[in-house]
Amino acid sequence: MSTDKRTHDRKFVRTFFTTPTAVEGEDDSAKMLQSAVQLRGMQAPDVWVPDNEDATAPNMRDEGAGNIIDVVAEHGADFPAEIHPRVVWHRDDPGTRYQGFEHMREIADPDNGAIEHIDGFVIPEVGDIDDWKKADEFMTIVENEHGLEQGSLAMSVIIECGSSELAMEELRTEMGKPSNNLERLFMLVNGEVDYTKDMRAITPTGELPPWPELRHNTSRAASAAGLIAVDGPYDDIRDVEGYRERMTDNQAKGQLGIWSLTPGQVVEANKSPLPPVEGYWVLDADGREVELESEGGVEVYDGDRVSLSETDGGYVLTVGGDELELDADELREELLDMLSYVPSMDDIVDSMEEFEAAKEAGRGAIAMTQAATVRIDGIEVDVERDRMWDEATYQALQTPITLFQDVYENRPDQHDDLADLYGEGVVERAMNVG
Amino acid sequence: MSTDKRTHDRKFVRTFFTTPTAVEGEDDSAKMLQSAVQLRGMQAPDVWVPDNEDATAPNMRDEGAGNIIDVVAEHGADFPAEIHPRVVWHRDDPGTRYQGFEHMREIADPDNGAIEHIDGFVIPEVGDIDDWKKADEFMTIVENEHGLEQGSLAMSVIIECGSSELAMEELRTEMGKPSNNLERLFMLVNGEVDYTKDMRAITPTGELPPWPELRHNTSRAASAAGLIAVDGPYDDIRDVEGYRERMTDNQAKGQLGIWSLTPGQVVEANKSPLPPVEGYWVLDADGREVELESEGGVEVYDGDRVSLSETDGGYVLTVGGDELELDADELREELLDMLSYVPSMDDIVDSMEEFEAAKEAGRGAIAMTQAATVRIDGIEVDVERDRMWDEATYQALQTPITLFQDVYENRPDQHDDLADLYGEGVVERAMNVG
Amino acid sequence: MSTDKRTHDRKFVRTFFTTPTAVEGEDDSAKMLQSAVQLRGMQAPDVWVPDNEDATAPNMRDEGAGNIIDVVAEHGADFPAEIHPRVVWHRDDPGTRYQGFEHMREIADPDNGAIEHIDGFVIPEVGDIDDWKKADEFMTIVENEHGLEQGSLAMSVIIECGSSELAMEELRTEMGKPSNNLERLFMLVNGEVDYTKDMRAITPTGELPPWPELRHNTSRAASAAGLIAVDGPYDDIRDVEGYRERMTDNQAKGQLGIWSLTPGQVVEANKSPLPPVEGYWVLDADGREVELESEGGVEVYDGDRVSLSETDGGYVLTVGGDELELDADELREELLDMLSYVPSMDDIVDSMEEFEAAKEAGRGAIAMTQAATVRIDGIEVDVERDRMWDEATYQALQTPITLFQDVYENRPDQHDDLADLYGEGVVERAMNVG
Repeated sequence: MSTDKRTHDRKFVRTFFTTPTAVEGEDDSAKMLQSAVQLRGMQAPDVWVPDNEDATAPNMRDEGAGNIIDVVAEHGADFPAEIHPRVVWHRDDPGTRYQGFEHMREIADPDNGAIEHIDGFVIPEVGDIDDWKKADEFMTIVENEHGLEQGSLAMSVIIECGSSELAMEELRTEMGKPSNNLERLFMLVNGEVDYTKDMRAITPTGELPPWPELRHNTSRAASAAGLIAVDGPYDDIRDVEGYRERMTDNQAKGQLGIWSLTPGQVVEANKSPLPPVEGYWVLDADGREVELESEGGVEVYDGDRVSLSETDGGYVLTVGGDELELDADELREELLDMLSYVPSMDDIVDSMEEFEAAKEAGRGAIAMTQAATVRIDGIEVDVERDRMWDEATYQALQTPITLFQDVYENRPDQHDDLADLYGEGVVERAMNVG
Repeated sequence: MSTDKRTHDRKFVRTFFTTPTAVEGEDDSAKMLQSAVQLRGMQAPDVWVPDNEDATAPNMRDEGAGNIIDVVAEHGADFPAEIHPRVVWHRDDPGTRYQGFEHMREIADPDNGAIEHIDGFVIPEVGDIDDWKKADEFMTIVENEHGLEQGSLAMSVIIECGSSELAMEELRTEMGKPSNNLERLFMLVNGEVDYTKDMRAITPTGELPPWPELRHNTSRAASAAGLIAVDGPYDDIRDVEGYRERMTDNQAKGQLGIWSLTPGQVVEANKSPLPPVEGYWVLDADGREVELESEGGVEVYDGDRVSLSETDGGYVLTVGGDELELDADELREELLDMLSYVPSMDDIVDSMEEFEAAKEAGRGAIAMTQAATVRIDGIEVDVERDRMWDEATYQALQTPITLFQDVYENRPDQHDDLADLYGEGVVERAMNVG
Repeated sequence: MSTDKRTHDRKFVRTFFTTPTAVEGEDDSAKMLQSAVQLRGMQAPDVWVPDNEDATAPNMRDEGAGNIIDVVAEHGADFPAEIHPRVVWHRDDPGTRYQGFEHMREIADPDNGAIEHIDGFVIPEVGDIDDWKKADEFMTIVENEHGLEQGSLAMSVIIECGSSELAMEELRTEMGKPSNNLERLFMLVNGEVDYTKDMRAITPTGELPPWPELRHNTSRAASAAGLIAVDGPYDDIRDVEGYRERMTDNQAKGQLGIWSLTPGQVVEANKSPLPPVEGYWVLDADGREVELESEGGVEVYDGDRVSLSETDGGYVLTVGGDELELDADELREELLDMLSYVPSMDDIVDSMEEFEAAKEAGRGAIAMTQAATVRIDGIEVDVERDRMWDEATYQALQTPITLFQDVYENRPDQHDDLADLYGEGVVERAMNVG
């Protein structure tokens, strides 16, 4: 995607999709790049990362740099994603840093025809902030050599060791200093495999640890410095459910982007932070969240973990092994505590419109009501909950809509998919609130 | 509450109760302030925050500042809580900061008669430490203008963005510098709604994320800088159980104070960090903590998750779906792992007295024994556990008593409630240990 | 253990075993030191800490310093562990710091014959980094006075307050400055009892809070500064299972060492980070991890939480209260999500050898297959999973082997135990991979 001002066009990045730049033993070593650059719509990521580091064998990386140039020069103009190749780098190895510098010089050379479609570079294995400054300086030199505007190449880093995790805390004081161009920073990306090695962590099964603090710290640094937080790769490609759960967990930390290893993962990750098409009720059934089936306006629980029966005086609600004897009001209260509602895009837009109208009418806070009829073991119960919305609530709940708007503005190739998904009417209203 | 040395009288703050300063459409726009300032005893908070920011509509805030003056001037002398009005502030908006400055000037003007009852101000939406210093300087200017002692106005901040979360780490190096008066800092308060917006976090239901790292970092900063950590508002006022669980979670992080939105929440939050009146045993029944019923000295489990039966050779203990065949000793061991005891105020005072006596007698460590007879499905089992207490254990377990003593000294209006709750004897002994 | 270059011989520390230095009322106040210094093999820790601070009564500490000298001078040459006495120190009390200095001077005096067997000192209750520098400077003075090489005494610190938790973030910028010798730093050790006091945390039962963020921050600081992270004491000596769970949790954070209070805990902690002798499959049975029994090549689940039956069309799998109707492929997928494999030392060495051979043959990534036949309620299902190994995976999964190699090289007294455990063949191959 070619733009005049390359960096920071996107306020949100859902997907960071890496592709090996050169594969040995194929007719065309650029085969995987050729295939990736054809992706469109929900299969195309927000950010495409031709990966000239770990995904490509060391002896193929010079060829890989050439492949990036060839493929991007030919197809970059039509490609809907931002393009940020990953080059080699290592905080402890000047030889590797030099190689990364040379690859950036080559890829950014306007004579090679690719740079007008390239938005920046991804620098792995950074260490202290002084190491980040070296990469920044190399980009400044490359821009200078090739007559590119200073700071026009975005820089994204992979956080895969303790020292770079700590360095993120210094961004607010370092960005903006006259002796660097760190304002070019764009994405902070977690790299949990190498991070696990650097932290010397061990798990019995060899699975990666969850690293919640790392993800929090990355999201916080992105928030404080106006950057974008992206989580690392999810290796078990087969496990779609696990990938989704990881994204939900990330989103609650403000880390809205994630690495994708396949077009299938790209589709999942492009959709994950967007609100669902239909809202639904969830029951906390003894510690497990169960989605209720909506049948003719009634929300039905159909499992064995929770059961309900009527007695003379009232009701018996059984959750796991615990029996509760309740009257009608107590039952309603108990169920309210167990129930929650996941709003659809339509619901969110409705609530925002309602709050905006109330604000216009001079009211600073309004109650939003969620009501449902719930059926358990054939017994129906009406529940209803109010939630106060004030300006702060409104703004905090606006994030998925702001994200949707960013996607819609930057990804015309996804307009059809989004209209198919949500309907034209909802899409249009979602573009007009906020 | 009027004092000569305003700041830092309280070593603990359980409750941070906010009240809108001016409500449109009422006969008296100060109605809610008038009502709050009448609170006494367990309904009165440790810190009362007339809220001239988010709780009050923007166009009512000048009137709100006047209302604070009127209500505090008239009733402040008799009010048992510290009073810390929240003024407007924003790290990104000088106009808002100027307005906050003007409101502080007005409220602090001795001619208006309120400032002798006001302990400090709460500053929301702070950013980097340099932003905190601006608020500090404005307070210094206000003190200077009005002839108040420099540093006498306490300053508390709301942490509601990533940059202020990071700024907390700098307090130890910044407080005490000759060019600021940051020693006036008093409370670090989390504001999770705006924090969630700033972090751009999304949850499926729109609930606030739990933000455990933020709460840890706030508590740690408070500990390192001699300040007090307070958690943000719990919106679902109906959900008392959820509010209690949040407080228990906070307390395990050292965040002993919490925002209260209603007098009902104030009562809950004033009581929550105090030890219970009666001790009780808890059984971990397949992942759910169940409080045992004490019947004539026997602790009875009455649920379905755990069952116990006698066989020829020994016992069968069933937990969830798992059957364990055990002899008497193994059964005792297994139950010990599942049981824990929550000591009462009386129990804690007993243990402290016992340790103090042992120390006086020259012993540095003693074993404290907890014993109980537990009944499951009619079968009784005696269990007993020793815990070693040394000086460090003694000091770590002393926190609830130190908190109680701080409450008792600073809140004469709660003496009757505390005596009713615990009995005069326990209260007196609790005031004399430690 | 006497070495020329004392610090940093060990890249890993599994066990940090403390012993009171002087006990009143015994014939020989050094009795416990005498007993500890006889430990060998799996009962002997990686680091032995004669504890002249909290474990020893204040009035016995001068005698304790003398006892350390006597016992180490006599037995230190034959003792297999590093020896790091803990001296007294407090960030807030110069008198305590002075006492610690005097004890270090005495213990390090070559005329007393102990220092050649002592590797460094443990400094408790440190505060800001400037406080760490005081302890460092006292050690430099001691080295100078006694003609020891500058920096030869290792320094380890106990992190037991918020300010020292924050100080850990500064190590990378402070270590290596010409005006200190902080390169002598060796272990960062958590002290959760005092930390809990400093943070003023409260739990209902008086149990220590889990402090996950503290442990993460300690591990991260250790990783960033080339140090070793050690967790604090686990008080409930009886609860072996709880101690193991804590170690597993620590290991997933990269905190591979832990405090041990008894030789029994030393044995557990020495073994915990080493891979198991036999690999095994684990089933996530409705939230509880259950180890499957291996019977003649079939992995058998024998509990009630998960059940499986065959129907006409396929299978019914019941997990907790939820019934799933599945065909053969869906059943396999579902079970795959519930199953994981814990590899043995032998398995890990196999995989590493296989990857090394592939790399030699020019392949950068290979698929490792885990296959099993699982039996639930008499029905057998074959499952199989591939995991891609590339260089980063290889390195991240290598940690337990690197740890094993460090143990084997530094602890000849454990060779027999390790050979008994794993077999000579596995030990030899484990020493040759990587």
